[in-house]
Amino acid sequence: MGEFELIDRIRARLPRPAGRVRLGPGDDAAITRPGGVTATSVDAVVEGVHFRRDTAPLASIGHKGLAAGLSDLAAMGAATGEAYLVLGVPSDLTEDDAVDLLAGASGLADETGTELAGGDVVRSPVLFLSVTVVGHGASEDALVPRAGARPGDAIAVTGELGGAAAGLLLLEDPGLRGGVNDAAARFALGRHLEPWPRLSEGLALATAGATAMIDVSDGFGAEAGHLAAAGGVGLSVDASRLPVAPEAAAVAAAAGRDRLELAASGGEDYELIACLPPDAVGPATRAVEASGGRLTVVGEVGPGDGVRIRLPDGTRFEPGGYDQLG
Amino acid sequence: MGEFELIDRIRARLPRPAGRVRLGPGDDAAITRPGGVTATSVDAVVEGVHFRRDTAPLASIGHKGLAAGLSDLAAMGAATGEAYLVLGVPSDLTEDDAVDLLAGASGLADETGTELAGGDVVRSPVLFLSVTVVGHGASEDALVPRAGARPGDAIAVTGELGGAAAGLLLLEDPGLRGGVNDAAARFALGRHLEPWPRLSEGLALATAGATAMIDVSDGFGAEAGHLAAAGGVGLSVDASRLPVAPEAAAVAAAAGRDRLELAASGGEDYELIACLPPDAVGPATRAVEASGGRLTVVGEVGPGDGVRIRLPDGTRFEPGGYDQLG
Repeated sequence: MGEFELIDRIRARLPRPAGRVRLGPGDDAAITRPGGVTATSVDAVVEGVHFRRDTAPLASIGHKGLAAGLSDLAAMGAATGEAYLVLGVPSDLTEDDAVDLLAGASGLADETGTELAGGDVVRSPVLFLSVTVVGHGASEDALVPRAGARPGDAIAVTGELGGAAAGLLLLEDPGLRGGVNDAAARFALGRHLEPWPRLSEGLALATAGATAMIDVSDGFGAEAGHLAAAGGVGLSVDASRLPVAPEAAAVAAAAGRDRLELAASGGEDYELIACLPPDAVGPATRAVEASGGRLTVVGEVGPGDGVRIRLPDGTRFEPGGYDQLG
Repeated sequence: MGEFELIDRIRARLPRPAGRVRLGPGDDAAITRPGGVTATSVDAVVEGVHFRRDTAPLASIGHKGLAAGLSDLAAMGAATGEAYLVLGVPSDLTEDDAVDLLAGASGLADETGTELAGGDVVRSPVLFLSVTVVGHGASEDALVPRAGARPGDAIAVTGELGGAAAGLLLLEDPGLRGGVNDAAARFALGRHLEPWPRLSEGLALATAGATAMIDVSDGFGAEAGHLAAAGGVGLSVDASRLPVAPEAAAVAAAAGRDRLELAASGGEDYELIACLPPDAVGPATRAVEASGGRLTVVGEVGPGDGVRIRLPDGTRFEPGGYDQLG
């Protein structure tokens, strides 16, 4: 496959530059006129580490790679802007395969209003997709960093947890599908393969006065720990309030796993954890619901450090680590 | 090696955010306040494709990866701003190795005034470095795209050609070193392993009125072809005027290769090819020289299409393709 031919073929599928992008793919660099402040995040997904080609459809690899980047913008409360992709192409990936993979990313870009402003294709012994996303905010104050949680803030989480980890369980052990109804399996697989970045929820939470935010890529417990460390505060979470996706609970039951453990330690849900002053909880909840999402208060910020997740019986719960390929 | 520990260790070596960067590494995204327009480019270098660990010191891999990105900014006439790195770390790369590699990038960042504003570390079966660079310009008109060359423009090239390809010859066939003096070998290896992005030359050329620019990553002939195609013009080049590095000529002689062929087809010199209206050539030359560089007029833009490289005997010369690992 010729590198330049592939780039041309991909370029033909890209939207024409519009909005902030003044010069799109095909030159030495893309030119944009940002205005305000920009939020920029970089990440990569690699075959054998973050996905397997035998279980992940090619389009889902592109979708998920971009979704993970956009989720970082959501966690800043930034509006999505531009994305840049570098695809590492092994010799056994055909040109059609590469186009399929990138179609997954460009589909999500279209749906979220993100412009694919540039990219590159390189040969590589292993398939990888490196993603750069640029979001926008009116000012620094409009964006929400990880640090900033204050004692007394409520801890809230968008959507539901555990779905992506349940999907991974189903991919790793197809025998489990017999113990779960089809709709639940489809839901969990969708959460794992094609997560949705909570961009509108992030904007709503930032506007409502969130003091700190992070997205759940490495698991609720781990990400809450980052919020605690960054803010120099302690997070106290009531495990029984964690919004476990019912489909995740069904998969957990079939797998003989604890549903709370799956929800608290499972990664890649790409939900947002936000800290909110108590009087901001009501407006934030309504704003998130108006954007089509949901918000659940799961605990409270206090002094101290670290994350304490309490079970209904008063014992303390330690979520495990999460590895993206199990 | 723990991913987070490595990120922390790398972060400890980074400069504090300053200038445009309002929030540096360690959050979901970096926050910058650009002003004007931004030029953004992404690229990646992959082990076995763009470098080999047995011939490239680790620091040179980081240096070269960032240099290739900054060279794209130079080719736009943009001022360098921020860089973001994603390092793919295989299991046989130690934490010290990773720090050495990134030190090569951070050294070049310091020397060029580029802020390492963010990054990520991912596990990978193969070592790779994905680089995003963001440059800045006062306005779109201040930046120079590939398209824009007009019939009658002079074609000029910065610095000297062939050095990086000569260095690659020496790396691929160490026996050649016996036929070349040490200074020439050192020069050529330096050009290959630690190329220098022509940022100040690019700014000078843009300010002097360059109508089109591109950097020489895939070889002079190939890149001139891109300028011709983008501008819908033909480029006529006098091969005898190409500024062949004397050290490259010495290596070419030792290898039994044609010096012009090496200079015209060898990639990774990261020099700039610029098209300039005739009355801008003098000011551009003086501006490039004032920045410590040199500029050589090698031909003229005409109607038609493609690139014609003429040899002194009047015959036409066709540069070959360039493969980064020979």
